[in-house]
Amino acid sequence: MGGAILSDLVTEIVIPACAVVGILFSLVQWVLVSKVKLSPQRHAPEKNGGYNDYLIEEEEGLNDHNVVQRCAEIQSAISEGATSFLFTEYQYVGIFMAAFAILIFLFLGSVEGFSTKSQPCTYNNDKMCKSALANAIFSTVSFLLGAITSVVSGFLGMKIATYANARTTLEARKGVGKAFIIAFRSGAVMGFLLAANGLLVLYIAINLFKLYYGDDWEGLFEAITGYGLGGSSMALFGRVGGGIYTKAADVGADLVGKVERNIPEDDPRNPAVIADNVGDNVGDIAGMGSDLFGSYAESSCAALVVASISSFGINHDLTGMCYPLLISSVGILVCLITTLFATDFFEIKAVKEIEPALKKQLIISTALMTAGIALISWLALPSSFTIFNFGTQKVVKNWELFFCVAIGLWAGLVIGFVTEYYTSNAYSPVQDVADSCRTGAATNVIFGLALGYKSVIIPIFAIAVSIFVSFSLAAMYGIAVAALGMLSTIATGLAIDAYGPISDNAGGIAEMAGMSHRIRERTDALDAAGNTTAAIGKGFAIGSAALVSLALFGAFVSRAAISTVDVLTPKVFIGLLVGAMLPYWFSAMTMKSVGSAALKMVEEVRRQFNTIPGLMEGTAKPDYATCVKISTDASIKEMIPPGALVMLTPLIVGTLFGVETLSGVLAGSLVSGVQIAISASNTGGAWDNAKKYIEAGFSDHAKSLGPKGSDSHKAAVIGDTIGDPLKDTSGPSLNILIKLMAVESLVFAPFFARHGGLLFKLF
Amino acid sequence: MGGAILSDLVTEIVIPACAVVGILFSLVQWVLVSKVKLSPQRHAPEKNGGYNDYLIEEEEGLNDHNVVQRCAEIQSAISEGATSFLFTEYQYVGIFMAAFAILIFLFLGSVEGFSTKSQPCTYNNDKMCKSALANAIFSTVSFLLGAITSVVSGFLGMKIATYANARTTLEARKGVGKAFIIAFRSGAVMGFLLAANGLLVLYIAINLFKLYYGDDWEGLFEAITGYGLGGSSMALFGRVGGGIYTKAADVGADLVGKVERNIPEDDPRNPAVIADNVGDNVGDIAGMGSDLFGSYAESSCAALVVASISSFGINHDLTGMCYPLLISSVGILVCLITTLFATDFFEIKAVKEIEPALKKQLIISTALMTAGIALISWLALPSSFTIFNFGTQKVVKNWELFFCVAIGLWAGLVIGFVTEYYTSNAYSPVQDVADSCRTGAATNVIFGLALGYKSVIIPIFAIAVSIFVSFSLAAMYGIAVAALGMLSTIATGLAIDAYGPISDNAGGIAEMAGMSHRIRERTDALDAAGNTTAAIGKGFAIGSAALVSLALFGAFVSRAAISTVDVLTPKVFIGLLVGAMLPYWFSAMTMKSVGSAALKMVEEVRRQFNTIPGLMEGTAKPDYATCVKISTDASIKEMIPPGALVMLTPLIVGTLFGVETLSGVLAGSLVSGVQIAISASNTGGAWDNAKKYIEAGFSDHAKSLGPKGSDSHKAAVIGDTIGDPLKDTSGPSLNILIKLMAVESLVFAPFFARHGGLLFKLF
Repeated sequence: MGGAILSDLVTEIVIPACAVVGILFSLVQWVLVSKVKLSPQRHAPEKNGGYNDYLIEEEEGLNDHNVVQRCAEIQSAISEGATSFLFTEYQYVGIFMAAFAILIFLFLGSVEGFSTKSQPCTYNNDKMCKSALANAIFSTVSFLLGAITSVVSGFLGMKIATYANARTTLEARKGVGKAFIIAFRSGAVMGFLLAANGLLVLYIAINLFKLYYGDDWEGLFEAITGYGLGGSSMALFGRVGGGIYTKAADVGADLVGKVERNIPEDDPRNPAVIADNVGDNVGDIAGMGSDLFGSYAESSCAALVVASISSFGINHDLTGMCYPLLISSVGILVCLITTLFATDFFEIKAVKEIEPALKKQLIISTALMTAGIALISWLALPSSFTIFNFGTQKVVKNWELFFCVAIGLWAGLVIGFVTEYYTSNAYSPVQDVADSCRTGAATNVIFGLALGYKSVIIPIFAIAVSIFVSFSLAAMYGIAVAALGMLSTIATGLAIDAYGPISDNAGGIAEMAGMSHRIRERTDALDAAGNTTAAIGKGFAIGSAALVSLALFGAFVSRAAISTVDVLTPKVFIGLLVGAMLPYWFSAMTMKSVGSAALKMVEEVRRQFNTIPGLMEGTAKPDYATCVKISTDASIKEMIPPGALVMLTPLIVGTLFGVETLSGVLAGSLVSGVQIAISASNTGGAWDNAKKYIEAGFSDHAKSLGPKGSDSHKAAVIGDTIGDPLKDTSGPSLNILIKLMAVESLVFAPFFARHGGLLFKLF
Repeated sequence: MGGAILSDLVTEIVIPACAVVGILFSLVQWVLVSKVKLSPQRHAPEKNGGYNDYLIEEEEGLNDHNVVQRCAEIQSAISEGATSFLFTEYQYVGIFMAAFAILIFLFLGSVEGFSTKSQPCTYNNDKMCKSALANAIFSTVSFLLGAITSVVSGFLGMKIATYANARTTLEARKGVGKAFIIAFRSGAVMGFLLAANGLLVLYIAINLFKLYYGDDWEGLFEAITGYGLGGSSMALFGRVGGGIYTKAADVGADLVGKVERNIPEDDPRNPAVIADNVGDNVGDIAGMGSDLFGSYAESSCAALVVASISSFGINHDLTGMCYPLLISSVGILVCLITTLFATDFFEIKAVKEIEPALKKQLIISTALMTAGIALISWLALPSSFTIFNFGTQKVVKNWELFFCVAIGLWAGLVIGFVTEYYTSNAYSPVQDVADSCRTGAATNVIFGLALGYKSVIIPIFAIAVSIFVSFSLAAMYGIAVAALGMLSTIATGLAIDAYGPISDNAGGIAEMAGMSHRIRERTDALDAAGNTTAAIGKGFAIGSAALVSLALFGAFVSRAAISTVDVLTPKVFIGLLVGAMLPYWFSAMTMKSVGSAALKMVEEVRRQFNTIPGLMEGTAKPDYATCVKISTDASIKEMIPPGALVMLTPLIVGTLFGVETLSGVLAGSLVSGVQIAISASNTGGAWDNAKKYIEAGFSDHAKSLGPKGSDSHKAAVIGDTIGDPLKDTSGPSLNILIKLMAVESLVFAPFFARHGGLLFKLF
C-alpha cells in the first residue's frame, strides 16, 4: 500500500501552524478594522496636528463629530445588550450542558457497569481497548470542550460584529467601497478565528487524549466525537435562542413601526429598535458562528472516527489519519488568499459590484481549494488504502478520495449559486415574487412559498450526486470528507455570511444616528447583498449538514454493529416516518415561539407609543430596556422545548426502541429536514429581497411597484415579516437538528447497542 | 389450517349484493333530495290545487317564486360550467391516458419480448403462469377500466352536487336542520354510489379476468393492479386540474371582490363568481371523488396482489382471497346504518349541533365497523393461514388480521379527531390563529403555518402505530388491510366530505339569488362545519394514502424480487433523498400555477369592474364566461407538468437507476409527502375557519376581532386566500402523488426487474 509523502512530523507541525496563521491573519484584519476610530474628538487632535486621516477624502458628514459620538453610543448599547443576553443564555444553557454531561457519563459508563477493566475492541475483537468508563470520561470531557469552544466562537463573533457595525456606518460616509471593505474584513476576522480556533482545539485535544489512549486509536477517536456533540448542542441553543430573540424583536418592531406608525426601519423612536439590532448579533452572528463551528467539528469527528477503524487507524498511519485536519488546514490558507482578492487586490466602487465581488469569493476559494485538495491528497495519502465499510474493508485509491472531497466542495458551490439565483433580486424568481405583490400579500406569500419549494430541487440533486459518488468511492468516509470539502472554505463562507448582519446593523446605526439618506442607501445596498450571502451561507450550512449527518449516521450504524437498515422492517419504517415528522414538530415550536414573542413585543411597542408623550415627535426617548427584556425572556423560555425535543429524541428512541428504529429516525429526519430547511431559508430570503427590490426601485419594473408605502410595498413587507422566522429561526435550526441527532446517536451508540430497545425486549 | 365458515358461493353472492344495496340506497337518497323542487311555478299548481308542500312551514321567502327561479338559473349555470369543464378536462386527460395505456402495453409486453408463451411464475418457479404478453394486455385493460370508473365517479359526484346545491339553499329557508339533511343526503348519494360502484366494477373485472386466467391467480391479480393505477392516474389530473381551476377562481374573485371592492363573497356582481362555484364542484367534489376512489381501488389491489401469493392464492381459497372485498361490502352496510343516524334517527335544530352530528357519524361508523370486521374476519378467514413476507411465508391467525383492519379503522378516527381539533373554530388552535390577526396578516400566517406543522404530530404517530402493529402481525398484507380498514367507512367519509362543498355552493347561490341575510348565515354555518369535515376527509385520504402506498411499495418490492431496501447503500439513499424532495417540486408547480392563474383572473375581474359601466351598481351583468375560460385554460395547461412529473418519475428512475433507487424514491416521497399534505390541508382549513370565526362573531372574543371589514378580518382574509391552494390544490394532490408512484412502480415492476437500471449497467 505504500506510505504517504508527508512525514508524520511535518503533519504534526503543519496543522497547528496553519491554525496559528489563521489566527494571526484574523488579528491583522482586526487591527485594520480598528483603525476606523469611533471617538475622533479625543484622539484626532493628538496626532497629525489636528488633522486626522478621514479628512483626506472630503465626503459628507465626515466632520460631524456628533454623528460619530452618536454612532459610538448606539454601538455600545447594542454591544452591551448582546453581551448581557449571551451571558444570560449561556447561564441557562450551561446548566443544561452540565446535566447532559452527567447523562453522557452515566449512560456510557454504565455500558460495562462502570468497570475500569480493558475490553475487546468493537471492530477488532482480538485486540484490547480502553475501558468503557474511560470512553465515558473522555467523551464527557470532549463534549464540554466542544461546548466551550462553541460558546467562545459565538461570543467572539458577536464581539467582532458589534465592534465593526458602527465602523462600517462611519466608513459608508466615504463611499460604498470603503464600507464594504470594513464589513467584509470584520466578517473575515470572525471566519478565520472560528475556523482556526476549531482546528487548533481539536488538534490539541487529540494530542492530549493520546497521552492516555496511546495506541488505542479506535477508543481515542470514539471519545473525540463528544467534541462534535458539544459543539452542536451549544449551537442548537444558540440558533434557536438567538433566532427567537432576533425575530421577536424584528417582527414586533416592523409590525408597529413600519406597518402601523409608518416610520422607517430602525427609526430610533421605535422602542424595539435596540432589541432588533442586538438580535442580529446574537442570532445571525453568534448563532451562525456556533452552527458552522458545530458542522465543522462534527464532520471532522465523523471522518476521524471512520478513519480510526480503517487502514489509517489500524496501521497507525498518523498523516493519513490526520487527512481531515490537513484539509481544514489547507482551507485556511486558501481562504486567506481568497480574502485578499476582496480586500486588497480589487476595490469596489459601485453598488452593483458588491454581489459579484462576493460571488467571486466563492469561485476563487473553490478553484484554489480544488488545487489544495489535490496537493494534500497526493502528499498525505498512500496511493492505496482501505476504508471501513459496514463490516468489510474497501480498497480506496488516493485520487478517489480527492474526488470525494472535491465533489463536496463543488456541490457547495452549486448550492451557493442556486441559492443566489433564488434569493437575489437581480434574477427573475425574486422579481416575480415582487411583481405578485401587485395583487396583495396573499399572492406574494403563495409565490414566495412556491419559490422556496422550487429552490430545493437543484441543491438536492447536487447533494444526491455528491453522496452517490463519494459513497460509491469511499463508503461513509467518502461522505465525511465530502462534507469537509464543502466546509473547507468555511473561513470565506463565514466571512461573507457575517458581512450581512454587520451591514444590516450598520444601516440601523446610520438611521438611529440620524445620518443622511445617502448613507442609509449605501448600507442598504450592502445589506441587500448580505441577504443573499446569508442565504448562501445557510445553503452551505444545510448542504454540509446533510452530508455530515449521513456520515455520522454511517459511523453510528457501524458502531452500533448493525449491518443493514432495511426500510422493509416495521421497526425501521416507523422510525423513518416519525423522523420525517420531527422537523415539522420542531418548526411548529419555533414558529409559534417567534409569533407569541412578537405579539408581546407588539403590545409593548404599541403601549409605549400610546403612553409616552412626545415619542412619535422624537422629543421623548423610548424605553428600549423593556423590549430587550421581552426578547430575552421569550427566547430563554422558548428555546428549551425545541432544544429538549432534539436532545431527548435519540435518547428516548434508542433506549426504548433500539438502534434500528433510531436509524430510521435519523434517515427520516435527514431527508425531510433538508428540504424544509432549504425552502424555509430561501423563501425568507426571497421575500426580504423582493421588499428591498421594491424599495430600491432600480429598474422601471421595480419603480412601478414602489415607492415605500405603496400597496405593493405593504404586501412585500408582510411577506418579509413572515419570512423572518422561516429564514432566521426555523430554517437554520433544522440543520442543527439533523446533525445533532446523528452525532448524539453516535456518542451513545455503545449504550444503545448494549441496553437499547427496552420496549421490544419487554414485550 | 382449516377452511372458512363462509362458503365460496355465499362470498360470490354477498359482495355484489352489498354493492347493489349501496347503489339502491344512494338512489333512494337521490329521490329524497329530488323532492325539493326547483321549479314551483310550473309544477306547484298541478298538484294540491295551488298549494305546494313548502307551505307547511311558513318561513321566510318560501313564497317568493322569483327566488326559486333565480336559484334554478344559477344552479344550471354552475352545472353547465362544471360539465363543460370536465368534458374538456377528460378530452385532454383521455389522450394522455391512451398514450400511457400504450406505454403500459409496450413496457410490460417487452419483458419477454412479446412472446405468447407461458412462463414460470414469479414467486413459484415450479409452476407455469400466463405469458408476460397476457399480463401486458390485461394490465392495460384494467388500467383503462380504472380510469373510466374514476371518471364516472368524479362526474357523477359533480352532477349530484350541482343537483343538490340550489336545493340546499331553498331548504335553508325552512331552517338549518332541513338544509343540513339535504346537503348530507346529497353527500350520501355520492358516497354510496362511489363506494358501491368501485366495488362492483372491481368484482366484475376479477370474475371476467378469471375466465382467461383460470387457476393462475398470481397473474390475475397482478393484472388487476392496473385498475388501481388507472383510478389514481385519473384522480391525479382530476385533483390537480380541478384544484387549479377552483383556486384560481376563488383567489381571483376574493382578491378583487372582497379585498379591493369590498363586496361580499359570492356577490353576483363579481365576474369570477360563477367560475368560483363551478370550481367547488370540479375540484372539491369531482377531484375528491376520483381521489378516494383511487385510494380504495389501490388498497384493494395491494391487498389482493399480496393475498394471491399467500396461502389464499396458493390454495385457491376464494373466500379468504376476497376478504378485502368483503370488508368493503360490510363497510357499505355499516355506512348505510350510520347515515340513518344523521338523516332519520335524529334531527338537527341548531347551528351548534351540526359539527357534533358529523362527528357522531365518524364515531358510529367506526364502532359499528369494528363489529363488522370482527364478524367478517371470523366468517371469511380460516383460523390460521400464511402470508407472503418478502420471500418467506408468515403464519397469521384470523384474529391478528382483525386487529390489522381494526387498527387502520381506529387510526382513521384518531386522524379525523385531531384534524377536527386543529381546523374547527370551536377549539383553541384556530381561535389562537384568529387572535393573531389582531397584529396583521403576517402573524396570522406565522401562526397558521405553525398550526399546520403541529397538526402533523399525532396523525403521524397514529399512522406509525398502525403500520407497526399491522406490519408485525401480517407483513405487507397487514398494511394493505389496515388501509382498507381506514377506507372501509369511505361512504360515510365521502358523504360528510361532499357535504362541505355542497353547503359552500348553497351559500353562494343564496348570495347570488339575493336571498336574505339569514339564509346566508345558515348556509355559512353549514359551510364552516363543512370546512372542518373537508379537512377530516383530507386527513383520511392522506392517512389511507400513506398505508396504501406502503402496501403497494411492499408489493412492488416483492414483485421486483428485492429482499431488502437498505438505506446504507448509496443507490437507495439518494433515492430516499430525491424522493423526499419530489413533494416540494410538485407543490412548487401547483402553487405557482394557482398563483399565476389567479393573477390573470384578478386582471380580468379588475378589467370588467373598470370597463363595464353599471357593474358595481348592479345594473349591468358581468361577463362570467371569460372568467370561466381563464380558469379552464389555466387548469388544463398547468395540470400537465405536475402530472407528468408524477407519472414519469417512476418510469425514468426505474428504467435508468433500477429498482433499489426506485424503492428509495417511493419511501422518501411517502414519508415526506405525508407530512406536507397533512400540514398544508390543516393550515388551509384553519385559516378558512379563523376567518369564519371572526365573521360569525359568536363569542365575545370573536366579536372583539370583527366585524367583517375590520383590520383583523382583512388579515384573516389574506390567510384564507393563501390557504386556498395549500388545502385544495397542493395538499390533497400530494397523497395521490405518493400512491400513484407506488402503484405505477408495482405495475411496471416486471419490466424494471428485467430491464431496469440501464445507467448502472452501462457504467
